[in-house]
Amino acid sequence: MGKGRLEAFSDGVLAIIITIMVLEMQAPHGGELAELLAVQPIFLSYLLSFVYVGICWNSHHHILQATRKVSASVMWANLHLLFWLSLLPFATAWMGENLFATWPTVLYGVILLLMAVAFLILERAITVINGPDSLLAAALGAADRKGLLALALYAIALSLAFVSPTLAQ
Amino acid sequence: MGKGRLEAFSDGVLAIIITIMVLEMQAPHGGELAELLAVQPIFLSYLLSFVYVGICWNSHHHILQATRKVSASVMWANLHLLFWLSLLPFATAWMGENLFATWPTVLYGVILLLMAVAFLILERAITVINGPDSLLAAALGAADRKGLLALALYAIALSLAFVSPTLAQ
Amino acid sequence: MGKGRLEAFSDGVLAIIITIMVLEMQAPHGGELAELLAVQPIFLSYLLSFVYVGICWNSHHHILQATRKVSASVMWANLHLLFWLSLLPFATAWMGENLFATWPTVLYGVILLLMAVAFLILERAITVINGPDSLLAAALGAADRKGLLALALYAIALSLAFVSPTLAQ
Amino acid sequence: MGKGRLEAFSDGVLAIIITIMVLEMQAPHGGELAELLAVQPIFLSYLLSFVYVGICWNSHHHILQATRKVSASVMWANLHLLFWLSLLPFATAWMGENLFATWPTVLYGVILLLMAVAFLILERAITVINGPDSLLAAALGAADRKGLLALALYAIALSLAFVSPTLAQ
Repeated sequence: MGKGRLEAFSDGVLAIIITIMVLEMQAPHGGELAELLAVQPIFLSYLLSFVYVGICWNSHHHILQATRKVSASVMWANLHLLFWLSLLPFATAWMGENLFATWPTVLYGVILLLMAVAFLILERAITVINGPDSLLAAALGAADRKGLLALALYAIALSLAFVSPTLAQ
Repeated sequence: MGKGRLEAFSDGVLAIIITIMVLEMQAPHGGELAELLAVQPIFLSYLLSFVYVGICWNSHHHILQATRKVSASVMWANLHLLFWLSLLPFATAWMGENLFATWPTVLYGVILLLMAVAFLILERAITVINGPDSLLAAALGAADRKGLLALALYAIALSLAFVSPTLAQ
Repeated sequence: MGKGRLEAFSDGVLAIIITIMVLEMQAPHGGELAELLAVQPIFLSYLLSFVYVGICWNSHHHILQATRKVSASVMWANLHLLFWLSLLPFATAWMGENLFATWPTVLYGVILLLMAVAFLILERAITVINGPDSLLAAALGAADRKGLLALALYAIALSLAFVSPTLAQ
Repeated sequence: MGKGRLEAFSDGVLAIIITIMVLEMQAPHGGELAELLAVQPIFLSYLLSFVYVGICWNSHHHILQATRKVSASVMWANLHLLFWLSLLPFATAWMGENLFATWPTVLYGVILLLMAVAFLILERAITVINGPDSLLAAALGAADRKGLLALALYAIALSLAFVSPTLAQ
């Protein structure tokens, strides 16, 4: 199986996810500057998610560039990754609407973590099917794993930062 | 006619369908955990539909990989399939909002059935135009038909499971 | 200039247009069959527009298959066509919500007509830049023009059919 | 790194941006002509943004056609451009709903300016990585820069035209 359609489908889903998040930012009814500033927390959560989806797209691009063959397990591992990614707009909207409150931020962090896990599963599935290229795959995997580890640590840190006040209470 | 654009267009439509279903899951206004849990039935119906669209995309990918030529009838058979797929977000939302009530679940099952029928029509249209490859097409068709039969049976079972209490009344 | 990205971009826009129209069909709040039937006029207008966008995608596919080179004027002629197409979801929603009332139906017909005109402009722009292939282009153009003429006539007939009772009054 | 996926992803995002803006144009509830005319300012702001996104897509197409290699900095410069583009639907909706009032128009102009800046950054990133082709890149850059300068000047003029009455007060 070629990887062309896997890339095309993933590009489509990622492009839609990165764009529909902006739909949460509803235009204020009045034309005053103050009304624009009220959109600020939703804008910040949008910006954060835009950067995360950008990182994901970059990682996805790198991983698949080292890929020659695609198996059914790669396709499902990819869909698994896209599933968690597709929940990001929901978590982004919840977090933005509630000014980065505890539970929405925890949900956001959990989804980032699950995305990192899904990336590792996808990498493993690709390494299994692309045996002969394993050196290249391993090299790439190492580089990406570093980035993903950072992503995961950041997610945990972010969550803890917000959960800690609640726990302290 | 080449099959490149048929694949690209189908990938686009499938990517949008799989992603817009998540828009039904509106972010709760409050930031409490209880409000997140209230979204659960809509989340479950989204998960179910995500898996179904994933299966469809996989089948579509397999069927078209064995295809060399594309005719007008293949293009319309493909659009016919995409039409029923495009109704899935509506059925998913109705089922999720009504906690898997009878009629919404029946509608959902009926659309899955029509999708299975549309797949069979698409396979036939492809087999007609790709005569010389008929062995390959037949082999693939058999494999897919198995999957689609399972899909159809599951759909019927699902519907019956929900309709039966109503009938019993 | 190659035509690859022109096709990809058009496929993307067409895929989105054909899919977002279904968002107008909001899931009823209750789970009764009667509530589903109330969606019927919106469903009918969606079905009609789905078929029209399908016809457009087929024509677009045929026209560009006979194309070798793409110029700036072809790109703008294509964007002009996509503009009218992008208004179809609006007209579809207005017509569906108002049970095919006079003015919404006239707007719908006018947009179909402008789409047909935009197709003719696109064909001319392609014929100008692909001089050496003019025979092929002409042949294709003739075939498409027949289809587009039918489309235009149908649009006029549709509009008249709905306007006439108003005029008679 | 190849540029195929960069183009595909950008095409996807641009196709979605150009299409979701039309979702702001909500179908009026009644079927009268007067209700259609009330949509006019939103339609005008949609038309304006459609043309701008069209210009951007054309420029993007030209710039990437002269590109052979893609680096991480090119990918992030491209995402940076897409970010400002993704804010255009929000600004368009705000401007349309408020009949081209001062602050919405200023926001719109500012986003256009940031898009122009993002284009210059993208061009520089591409020129850095495609050293050997620098002549071609420079030539293209010059042509595009002219267009972008015009875009920027137009944006400033537009903003000033709307801000001036406020300043005069």
